[in-house]
Amino acid sequence: MSNTMKASLPVIRRLPRYYRYITELKNNGTTRISSSQLAHIMGSTPSQVRQDFNCFGGFGQQGVGYSVELLHSEIEKLLFPEGRLRAVLLGAGNLGITIGNFVLKESTGVELVAVFDSDNAIIGNKLFGMEIMAFDELVSFCQNEHVDIIIACTTKEAAESLAPHIVETGVKGIWNYSHFDFSINDESLIVENVHLRDSLMALSYRVSHKECPHMQE
Amino acid sequence: MSNTMKASLPVIRRLPRYYRYITELKNNGTTRISSSQLAHIMGSTPSQVRQDFNCFGGFGQQGVGYSVELLHSEIEKLLFPEGRLRAVLLGAGNLGITIGNFVLKESTGVELVAVFDSDNAIIGNKLFGMEIMAFDELVSFCQNEHVDIIIACTTKEAAESLAPHIVETGVKGIWNYSHFDFSINDESLIVENVHLRDSLMALSYRVSHKECPHMQE
Repeated sequence: MSNTMKASLPVIRRLPRYYRYITELKNNGTTRISSSQLAHIMGSTPSQVRQDFNCFGGFGQQGVGYSVELLHSEIEKLLFPEGRLRAVLLGAGNLGITIGNFVLKESTGVELVAVFDSDNAIIGNKLFGMEIMAFDELVSFCQNEHVDIIIACTTKEAAESLAPHIVETGVKGIWNYSHFDFSINDESLIVENVHLRDSLMALSYRVSHKECPHMQE
Repeated sequence: MSNTMKASLPVIRRLPRYYRYITELKNNGTTRISSSQLAHIMGSTPSQVRQDFNCFGGFGQQGVGYSVELLHSEIEKLLFPEGRLRAVLLGAGNLGITIGNFVLKESTGVELVAVFDSDNAIIGNKLFGMEIMAFDELVSFCQNEHVDIIIACTTKEAAESLAPHIVETGVKGIWNYSHFDFSINDESLIVENVHLRDSLMALSYRVSHKECPHMQE
């Protein structure tokens, strides 16, 4: 895997989907799969599948199909870095609880190490066995505890008020559920925005206009 | 807008993002915008923007830039169908409450009309002012109340047990947060899967590998 090419963002975004499908194949006892079969599952083309895999070293010989076991372990190595990433949750409301639960329960390679909120009524309460801290404590906590990722489940306003301090925290990424646009002028910070609304609106459009064939993402 | 072309799924998925950006431009008092400026915001190319808009009739003259007001109202018409779509929520746990709250509070063009759960301990309780119903009542409710969309916030197992009855409900779409794959052999049913895990894993990959430039989705 030393000859890994620089993967583009669309390829990186497909990687978790490959991982999901390949995990299912593995669990179903499938041992080999061709690029055509994978393309069919992914809704792409065999050439796209091969190109995608070539970004990560190719994952084995094409002629005989890919080994499901090898694909699974190689993609797992890519997606689950050695040593889990450390994340803090901002916002202990319903959304924060849902996303925090998700991170704690699912196998994601991410470890939740602290929870912050701006509401004095709940600061000091326990959530996921952790004492909810005040936003004021965020920067020093992240610096001292080497936090990698901030999970922003706050309102737009709370996120906006925190934005000027994000670079100080030293985190490398934001998983952003707030409606605030963290356009921070720092190349070293990666922002992954989750727009639930976009997904619902795309569904609404398709349901209302019925212009597209039945397709799953 | 009568010359609307059949839009592909990627174009439809970009539409809510255009709408978000154009709403911001409108709120900031911008009156005209060029395809180059829009391409910059969207992270695409001017040619892509023009192609996308051509699927929906073009949205005005290119030479003088697009009218932000016109773009906003035309895309709004596309995304918010006349008469709101009627949705039911399956699953009244943390995730269901979060997503239900989201649908009720945000302007999405979708109306939440009922909540269902399988847990006898909470069936009959009120959520969002509605009495939580049992899964057994789902099919007849959807048929009688002309439900358009099912929002699936259940476990994988619960979704799987409901799947054989989905076609009977007559709904046109599923907004799927469960980990179950609703591969239903019915062209008339549209499934929009939300995979929170894919998004977190893509962020983890980028944070760990730091191969990509700073990009927002």
